[in-house]
Formats: sequence, C-alpha cells, structure tokens
Amino acid sequence: MSGAANMTNTSNRQVTIREVGMRDGLQSIPTIVPTERKLEWLREAHQAGLREIEVGSFVPARLLPQLADTAEVLAYARTLRGLVTSVLVPNLKGAERAIDGKADLIVVPLSASHQHSLANLRKTPDEVVAEVARIRAARDAAGSSTLIEGGVGTAWGCTLQGRVEWSEVLRLTQALLDAGADRINLADTVGYADPAAVRALCEQTRRVAGDRFWGAHFHDTRGMAMANVYAALETGITRFDASLAGIGGCPHAPGASGNVSTEDLAFMLASMGNETGIDLERLLDLRAKLAQWLQGETLHGTLARAGLPKTFAARAA
Amino acid sequence: MSGAANMTNTSNRQVTIREVGMRDGLQSIPTIVPTERKLEWLREAHQAGLREIEVGSFVPARLLPQLADTAEVLAYARTLRGLVTSVLVPNLKGAERAIDGKADLIVVPLSASHQHSLANLRKTPDEVVAEVARIRAARDAAGSSTLIEGGVGTAWGCTLQGRVEWSEVLRLTQALLDAGADRINLADTVGYADPAAVRALCEQTRRVAGDRFWGAHFHDTRGMAMANVYAALETGITRFDASLAGIGGCPHAPGASGNVSTEDLAFMLASMGNETGIDLERLLDLRAKLAQWLQGETLHGTLARAGLPKTFAARAA
Repeated sequence: MSGAANMTNTSNRQVTIREVGMRDGLQSIPTIVPTERKLEWLREAHQAGLREIEVGSFVPARLLPQLADTAEVLAYARTLRGLVTSVLVPNLKGAERAIDGKADLIVVPLSASHQHSLANLRKTPDEVVAEVARIRAARDAAGSSTLIEGGVGTAWGCTLQGRVEWSEVLRLTQALLDAGADRINLADTVGYADPAAVRALCEQTRRVAGDRFWGAHFHDTRGMAMANVYAALETGITRFDASLAGIGGCPHAPGASGNVSTEDLAFMLASMGNETGIDLERLLDLRAKLAQWLQGETLHGTLARAGLPKTFAARAA
Repeated sequence: MSGAANMTNTSNRQVTIREVGMRDGLQSIPTIVPTERKLEWLREAHQAGLREIEVGSFVPARLLPQLADTAEVLAYARTLRGLVTSVLVPNLKGAERAIDGKADLIVVPLSASHQHSLANLRKTPDEVVAEVARIRAARDAAGSSTLIEGGVGTAWGCTLQGRVEWSEVLRLTQALLDAGADRINLADTVGYADPAAVRALCEQTRRVAGDRFWGAHFHDTRGMAMANVYAALETGITRFDASLAGIGGCPHAPGASGNVSTEDLAFMLASMGNETGIDLERLLDLRAKLAQWLQGETLHGTLARAGLPKTFAARAA
C-alpha cells in the first residue's frame, strides 16, 4: 500500500458481535459443558443483549462430543426473542440438520489455504465450494429461509502452508458467491493478520462481494485481534465474531490464544461510541459464571480484571 | 466524529519504539533488578536493535529504590553506539542530574487530570508547566543539548477524576511548548483510551504542536494498546513507548496490565511492513532472560508464547 486512503467513520454505528464461544470456544477445549449450562449461557447472553450466537456445529458427535447436543441447543436458542442463530456445518449432511432445525444461518467453513483445508476439512477449497452449491440447492428445494454464510478461513496466512495469496482468497470468495452463498465472512483462523493486511484485504473483498461481505473473525494469537477489528471497522465491516473470555483456538495453530474476547470487544466498540446493544455489566456477570464452568481452562481478556472505567459508567448513566 | 477522514499510510515507514520497561516497568513492581542486570538488559536491547531507551528516573532513592542506580545506568547507556537515552525527571533537581549525566532527553511528566497530578506529582498541572520553564532555563544556562519532552499523562481520562477534557490536554500541550519543552508525548496513563479517541485527540494535538508532537504511550489495561497504537500511527505518529513483557502500570490504576509489550508491538509494526530496526529473535531471547530476572512478577504479551509466524520468518529471510 502507499499514500493515504479514505476510512469510514468508526463511531456512532450499529455494530454486531456474534458470540462464537459456544462453538469455536468449546470445540477447542476438553471440558464438556452440559446442555443445561449451555441453555443458561444462551439465556444470559441473550439477556445481556447479544442478538447473534453460533450455538454449535453439526458434525459427527464422535469427532466433537463437546457439541453433540447442538440440535437441542439450537431448538432452545430459537425460543429466545430476536436471536439470530448460527450453526457451523462442514457439509451437506450437517446443513440438512441445520435446515431441519430452522437455524437462521449456517456457516460453511472453507480454508483458503489448500494445506489447511486438507488437514482440517479433508477437502480442497474447491470441493468445499461444490458442497456449498449442493447445500444451496438443498436449502432452496426445502423452501427454507436459512441463510448460507461462506466462512473463508486462513485468509491472512496459514500455520501449515505459510503464505496464502490474496488473489486466492478473492477467487474463492467469488466462487462461494457463485455457488449460492448468501454472505461471506473472512477469518484469521490462526492469528497471522495485522491491521494493514486486514484493511487491504477487507477493501479488496468488499470490491468482490459488496454488501454480501458480511463479517470478520479474528484470533488474538499475537495480540492484534482488537487492532484488526478496528482496521476492519474502518473499511466498513460492522459484524464481528468473538467469544466470551476469548476461548477458542485452532488445532493447527500452536500457542493460539483464542478468539477476540466478547467482553473486551464489546467494551472497545461501546467506548468508541458505537451501539452494540450489549449490557457490559451483565456480560461480565456471565463471564464470571463461565469461568466457574470452565475451571482449569485458560481464559483470556482484560476487562474482567480491570473493570469498567469511571468515565464509561458516568457516560452510560 | 462524523464522516470519513483521511488517514496516513501505516506501512513502509520508519517507526521507533522507545523501551520504557527499565523505568515505567521496574518502578511498578517490587523486584529490584541489580545494576549489573540492567546493564546486561541495556546491552542486549541495544544488540536487538532498540535505539531509544528510558533508562531510569531521577527521583529520591527513598521513593523509588528500584531506580536508585539511574546515574550509573545512564552512564553505561551513553557508551552504547547510537542509543538515544531518556530519563524521567519530576522536577528541576532531577533535571539537573540528567543534564549533568548528559542524557539525550528528559521526560517531564505532567498529568492533564488535576486530581491525578496532585496525587502522583503533588503539583497542579500548571505548577509542572512552571517547572518545565525552570528546567528549560537551566538547560540553556548549562549550554546542554539535552532535549526536554513534556509527557502529558492521563490524556484520555483518569481513574481518580474520571473525564479529562481534551481542551485541557491541548491547553497544557501549548503551555508546555510555550514554557520551552522541545517535544510533547501523549500518554494513556491508566488505560482509558480507545482507537477513535486516540485518532481524534492525536489529530487535534498535531494541530497544536505540529512535528513537536513526538510520540505516544499506551497501557494495555483494557486490551486496546495495540489498536490504539495503530490508530495513532494512522494519524502520523511514528514513535511509541513500550516495555518488554508489558511490565508497568500505575499505582492509581487498579487492575492495570502494564504497557503495550515491546515484542508484540515490534512484531505488529514489522508485520505491517514498517522498519523498526529490531531483531525479533534477539528481543525474544532478552524477554526470556527478563522473565527469569523477574520471576514471580506478572508478565504480559502474546508473541513469546505464540512465536513468530511461518510467513514472517520466510519474509525476513
């Protein structure tokens, strides 16, 4: 990049956080959270103002026993007023279960890194695109209103393959849209992104996908998740994945320190004057509960320790 | 703020990190690092490519025994080729010692928060400005080339007073320049800043101080230090304070998690394509030593755990 660029206003906007701790977080840690607690988590997250939650993943239970109760969790989530439910599905079979369960949205993960795709999904990126076409056909045949989001992972690099060409990210973005994806999400699956790279790739992806470029997903592996969110926000992205207490990671990203934490991100966005709909006090109460449920697991985030600043409480009052 | 604003290019620039761990870090923790180890720290930091280091503080030894050896540390630092030495001084007496010791630069801290100023410095902000005028007169009378930096702290808010008006920050910036400060630094002493506020206040300060607005100092209390650096970088700031392993804090900022960590910041800047002159492998080696010296103290930062990404090593080679 060279020279100055324009940037979008980063304050006074509606910004949505999609909580993914219940899927991306729980799948990465050995503790199995009982269904009842997941329902409590959902209920309290909803009461704290979260309106988009990834409730689980339709994968075989033997692969991810932590998420074996996704159908039940989804059914409960659908009773919470105004909550947009997401489910991750790796293939048509999972998509059919999500459509049956009337999920509002399914996320189909694709790795822009060929090597990561084979290691994580046992498919090439283009085989995933073909699967999205089959999912779209099934969705339309069922007369379902479930939206299909293509999640383009390892968009900023890969622990296995190293460099991932942006041209490949853009090609796969276009291919996903052509195959019938309603939305695109870019993910820094392994924590390789930096703010300059985020800004540049988000701008280019916007040119390909327009408003169907729907959100971004950052990991805090090297401490840049919040800076990366800010850089993406400047390019006009207003929807971010995050997980409470920053739980999560990637089996192919050693030392990964999880997703950007929901509470830190919600605070940053609010502090900047954006509207997230989230009640931070309630969210911190829920985080304290989660810390009890996940005793022994490594949690992340700073707000729970530092607390809300004096100026913030005064302004909110 | 409303509407779009221009932003400066954030890649392909020379960006300077001033290591402040030896002052801001050590003054905040009970462990007293022996002088010999401080000299080793300096030597290895210099070998890792750091070219600006705040080596200590000229305050009474009974107040900060951790920094009682500042004169000796400064004398050694001055033998390291090309190293710009900074010393923090709270008053004329300290400044005279720094001038005697031929420090390249003295930082005079001022709190824009009246309450923080009284609690931390036992002076009002305007009394500090008057002290800067006396320091400038003494510097000029001595024919010294030591530069005077006014460090405007609590610029984005204060744990004691709460809100700090930006008009007051700008007034004190102008007053410091009028009193003879050569440079101005803005500091988020207690971790209240967010990227939108950083961008806005840095832009306004630039209008007052021009190129004499020299650098910024961010704490990671609420996880935003890296995002705040990025926002400041966008406004054209290219000099940042940081401390190895993120040590540091503020006695009036409960839960403070220290300065932005040197190694994480150096990595972010390099990853974005900026030139810092820092050898990250060597810096991580030094951090490992520091971790041994400071056993039992809380350290911060993510890079030491996650390591350098595959793509970074490949690019650097």
